[in-house]
Amino acid sequence: MKALVYCGVGDIALEERPDPTLQAPGDAVVRLVRTTLCGTDLHIIKGDVPACRPGRILGHEGVGVVEQVGSAVSQFKPGDRVLISCISACGKCDFCRRGMTSHCRTGGWILGHLIDGTQAEKVRIPHADTSLYHLPAGVDEEAMVMLSDILPTGFECGVLNGRVQPGGNVAIVGAGPVGLAALLTAQFYSPARIIMIDLDDNRLEVARGFGATDCFNAGDPQLLERVRALTDGLGVDSAVEAVGVPSTFSLCEELIAPGGDIAVLGVHGVPVQLHLERLWSHNITLRTRLVDAVTTPMLLKSVQAGKLQPEQLITHRFALGDILQAYETFGKAAQNKALKVIIEV
Amino acid sequence: MKALVYCGVGDIALEERPDPTLQAPGDAVVRLVRTTLCGTDLHIIKGDVPACRPGRILGHEGVGVVEQVGSAVSQFKPGDRVLISCISACGKCDFCRRGMTSHCRTGGWILGHLIDGTQAEKVRIPHADTSLYHLPAGVDEEAMVMLSDILPTGFECGVLNGRVQPGGNVAIVGAGPVGLAALLTAQFYSPARIIMIDLDDNRLEVARGFGATDCFNAGDPQLLERVRALTDGLGVDSAVEAVGVPSTFSLCEELIAPGGDIAVLGVHGVPVQLHLERLWSHNITLRTRLVDAVTTPMLLKSVQAGKLQPEQLITHRFALGDILQAYETFGKAAQNKALKVIIEV
Repeated sequence: MKALVYCGVGDIALEERPDPTLQAPGDAVVRLVRTTLCGTDLHIIKGDVPACRPGRILGHEGVGVVEQVGSAVSQFKPGDRVLISCISACGKCDFCRRGMTSHCRTGGWILGHLIDGTQAEKVRIPHADTSLYHLPAGVDEEAMVMLSDILPTGFECGVLNGRVQPGGNVAIVGAGPVGLAALLTAQFYSPARIIMIDLDDNRLEVARGFGATDCFNAGDPQLLERVRALTDGLGVDSAVEAVGVPSTFSLCEELIAPGGDIAVLGVHGVPVQLHLERLWSHNITLRTRLVDAVTTPMLLKSVQAGKLQPEQLITHRFALGDILQAYETFGKAAQNKALKVIIEV
Repeated sequence: MKALVYCGVGDIALEERPDPTLQAPGDAVVRLVRTTLCGTDLHIIKGDVPACRPGRILGHEGVGVVEQVGSAVSQFKPGDRVLISCISACGKCDFCRRGMTSHCRTGGWILGHLIDGTQAEKVRIPHADTSLYHLPAGVDEEAMVMLSDILPTGFECGVLNGRVQPGGNVAIVGAGPVGLAALLTAQFYSPARIIMIDLDDNRLEVARGFGATDCFNAGDPQLLERVRALTDGLGVDSAVEAVGVPSTFSLCEELIAPGGDIAVLGVHGVPVQLHLERLWSHNITLRTRLVDAVTTPMLLKSVQAGKLQPEQLITHRFALGDILQAYETFGKAAQNKALKVIIEV
């Protein structure tokens, strides 16, 4: 089969690989129909994720059709159309049993990281019963790819961890795909304002179309004053850091109101300064989370109910044979006005 | 009247001052019976709290007898025996109405900070109806002084913010008075282990007597391994930082288990490093809080019910006339084996 392989820092290739096979009774083999690229894949290629070794097939998102199941799989059979979660969960270990599947003892984020992933014609899915979802009839399968990772991540790590509330003010710093996923799902809770902040005016324009009430360029020297003017002079109740660098974290510290919640949604590569000399008495809460993808069933129902339009996040489409070109487009996402890029297998 | 006055960095004096008078209809004047010294007073004297100007009478804790009340005061009358909260709360502003009295628009921590405090024969208490508590009959009044600040602070900023749970593992870093107050009140929630960490072996011995299950010297080079050995190799569910310096914060970051809660109980003077490059995916929560003292009624009932013995925190007693000597003793607390020092007025 064809597969996109990480060959070492800065190096990927589309290669011929043998089809995956069942390795454990809980496994399924899924034939991909559609997959996508993630900012995390770019981190791997840059060398930021050393646990991902050269030779690995990348990708942790996708929809497909079950081809084979192991003897222990009871919830899926060949021919079932499925959504693949970015998080593999055994459902049985201590972390899974408390709902923290991201830290599953034999799962978590392993697809396209510690085991071969979904940017291929087929993929082996461990713990299939608790890591796949049936695709409801009648949904747009392409849009469902957004439920593998980006939407549960934006929702769990951004919206839930930022404790977005009706009547509250939310700032989302970073209008890339994951920030926009937070923007879409923040609206479940009807906050009074959703303020988007980014360096790219195009992305801010997209954010406005997605429901942001106020958009500011991060380079605006009056940014803090402008946000405070919108928020009774206090700052925001929820600040979602959706970039992953010290300067955007620092901005969230400055934007947060007393009693507010900071959600760390970005993937951070270096430590940040936490200004406890000011914040110790500020009654704030800061939360981090690797997505557990435990809200996927809720998100599926929200799509079916018309409360969420994941297809808004899709800007480009490529065939699997053109995946290197897809990486080029996605690698310069702002320049190409790219959000999520669908790979048709 | 006699009063302990902050005269500038490094300088305090026992002075004669005019008695306080009512300044607003919601005020009360309280004749102190007992007061105490707080680590925060030492911070002021060091010059760490510039908003506290020379000439200020220090102190924000105490019990006493109401002497006079303004025309708007309805819940207290002259002769009532009262507990003074360290937090003055108007009860009417936006912050008070959401229970965040620490940030009251005309109150918060103002006693012995922005207005004259309790280390005197008498004190003016603004917003008396919502800043004083009736002392129940039959309680040990001296012990009640511990409910002005140290116990609600240890409980709200340490135990509640650390989300101490039945069956959980708690580490409290710092066995000074506020760390010990967290230790006493953590036991409300029956955690499986309460691990105390401090550089001072005497204080660890006290902590053991107060109910700590495990005590470690912070200088122990095997500290992390030892704590992990007690906690399934994962670290603790709750880490309470009760010192206020970067190294103890850093220790809490290392001790915390995936999914755990860090409570910032210490008063911090400088920024700390937050290791988001590791913690972004660790599903942790970090909370800060200036005490709101909203749990004081619950703590009063816990004392009456015999579930909490605040008198355990009291090690020394001085007359108001000897308060300078009390400051000397408290300023070298570890050396003098001092916890809380009662001033008898």
